[in-house]
Amino acid sequence: MDFNVYITRVNAKLDQYLSAQGSLAKAMRYSALTNGKRFRPILTYSVANIFGTNLNLIDSSSCAVEFIHAYSLIHDDLPAMDDDDVRHNQPACHKRFGEAQAILAGDGLQALAFEVLVNDDLINADIKIELLKSLTHASFEMAEGQAIDLSIIAKQVDIATLETMHRKKTGVLLSCAVNLGAIVSKACNNKDRITLNSFSKDIGLAYQIQDDVLDIETPDALLGKKQFSDEHKNKPTYPSLLGLDKSKLAYKNLYEKASDELDLLSVNVAELQQLTANLQARLF
Amino acid sequence: MDFNVYITRVNAKLDQYLSAQGSLAKAMRYSALTNGKRFRPILTYSVANIFGTNLNLIDSSSCAVEFIHAYSLIHDDLPAMDDDDVRHNQPACHKRFGEAQAILAGDGLQALAFEVLVNDDLINADIKIELLKSLTHASFEMAEGQAIDLSIIAKQVDIATLETMHRKKTGVLLSCAVNLGAIVSKACNNKDRITLNSFSKDIGLAYQIQDDVLDIETPDALLGKKQFSDEHKNKPTYPSLLGLDKSKLAYKNLYEKASDELDLLSVNVAELQQLTANLQARLF
Repeated sequence: MDFNVYITRVNAKLDQYLSAQGSLAKAMRYSALTNGKRFRPILTYSVANIFGTNLNLIDSSSCAVEFIHAYSLIHDDLPAMDDDDVRHNQPACHKRFGEAQAILAGDGLQALAFEVLVNDDLINADIKIELLKSLTHASFEMAEGQAIDLSIIAKQVDIATLETMHRKKTGVLLSCAVNLGAIVSKACNNKDRITLNSFSKDIGLAYQIQDDVLDIETPDALLGKKQFSDEHKNKPTYPSLLGLDKSKLAYKNLYEKASDELDLLSVNVAELQQLTANLQARLF
Repeated sequence: MDFNVYITRVNAKLDQYLSAQGSLAKAMRYSALTNGKRFRPILTYSVANIFGTNLNLIDSSSCAVEFIHAYSLIHDDLPAMDDDDVRHNQPACHKRFGEAQAILAGDGLQALAFEVLVNDDLINADIKIELLKSLTHASFEMAEGQAIDLSIIAKQVDIATLETMHRKKTGVLLSCAVNLGAIVSKACNNKDRITLNSFSKDIGLAYQIQDDVLDIETPDALLGKKQFSDEHKNKPTYPSLLGLDKSKLAYKNLYEKASDELDLLSVNVAELQQLTANLQARLF
């Protein structure tokens, strides 16, 4: 499976949804259309694809989850928050458009995420409500997670607190990306849903521990943002709590657990196995 | 009709929806539960009430529209935006909790608005989708309106530009408050909907022109925020473009037009007439 197919697809759809002219269009397009990894939409498409779901039904979900992600990055980068100047190898939104536009572009993208889902005429109302339950919950939790993240700067915290923070800040939206693909897929039964939920939690946490490790090991240019940014901000991380080797082992184990879980699904999971392996092998 | 009944009702429901503990709870409660005028929820309840709709079906809509309003005030008050220190006679959210918490509390309230609607089990999925179409559209337009507002500071603009800005910034959410009440009301027919839509546009614009006038004529303590704030920020306003007398006449005419439109509805409109009269007579 060439996952670039999904990247091309979601980029075209995001572009389409952001084609309306308006006072926030430039800032929203600048942040949402640049070369993000599109990991969340890829997950949504992949989950739907292994169940043989028509991907036309998945476009709105994939874009919605990416819009929420894009909005969160814009707000997280603000001076009052993480104060990051570079994102995806370009000036952060507020550096390019000013803080006010950046706040509003983020606000607009959050609204747009829900609007895109609500207005998808290919999906029936009951399914849409299920999708929206997952996405509104994830979006709310994400704001909470960021608040916890800021509150523990320069503090001694235990692994449980760090895990709660990451679960809310990034894990819930990753789980949501998986859930949206599952919700739209008629062939995905209840047992599959439970399995996928557990899988998504494991890769969500693995992904975050790995992020902490990559922040230490990957240079700026490849990372697309500043290396050592966690350390410079005095943020507690898995390596700072567990050490580098134990952190690497922790995310390796989680990816392996996730991979084992996939084998419990009722369909051919080769594509999701490959995606999980690609994630584990990523360098940025 | 004593509209305080609706205020008491929506305050209790808002409180309930905000009862979950969490890292943003304090800041969200601080901003959303203080003594706002609750004009939007009152509108939603009143519209539903004149059609004999069970108000239990309206609570989520009323709260959702108020959460969007509360979020917008928090973000508008930020230093990078309007830089207002006082709101509802208390320090603005960012003055009390810091900018990061204020941004996130606003973000959380926007998500919560949609979450509350999506999770209302009393309303069927088709109706919910209609409600969400109106609310997501309003929320997106509002962010655009605020961007226009900031972009025209200290600029010469014409009345049409000012009207577009206000239509997006405040008018669309007011129309939405009316629409939500209409959508849930089975007795509200298509002709009624069209009439109410026109009514809501007129009171929305009237309300804003009146706001500009009150900003000049009402002292801080009654206004709950700084008097002359538009002038101090060099914002174009109706009085600055039309003069004070013509502005007063403009909103008076719009309220009268709105009142005439109400008489076209298929039900007894005494309550909405009274609300319109109360609005016109407001001092803050």
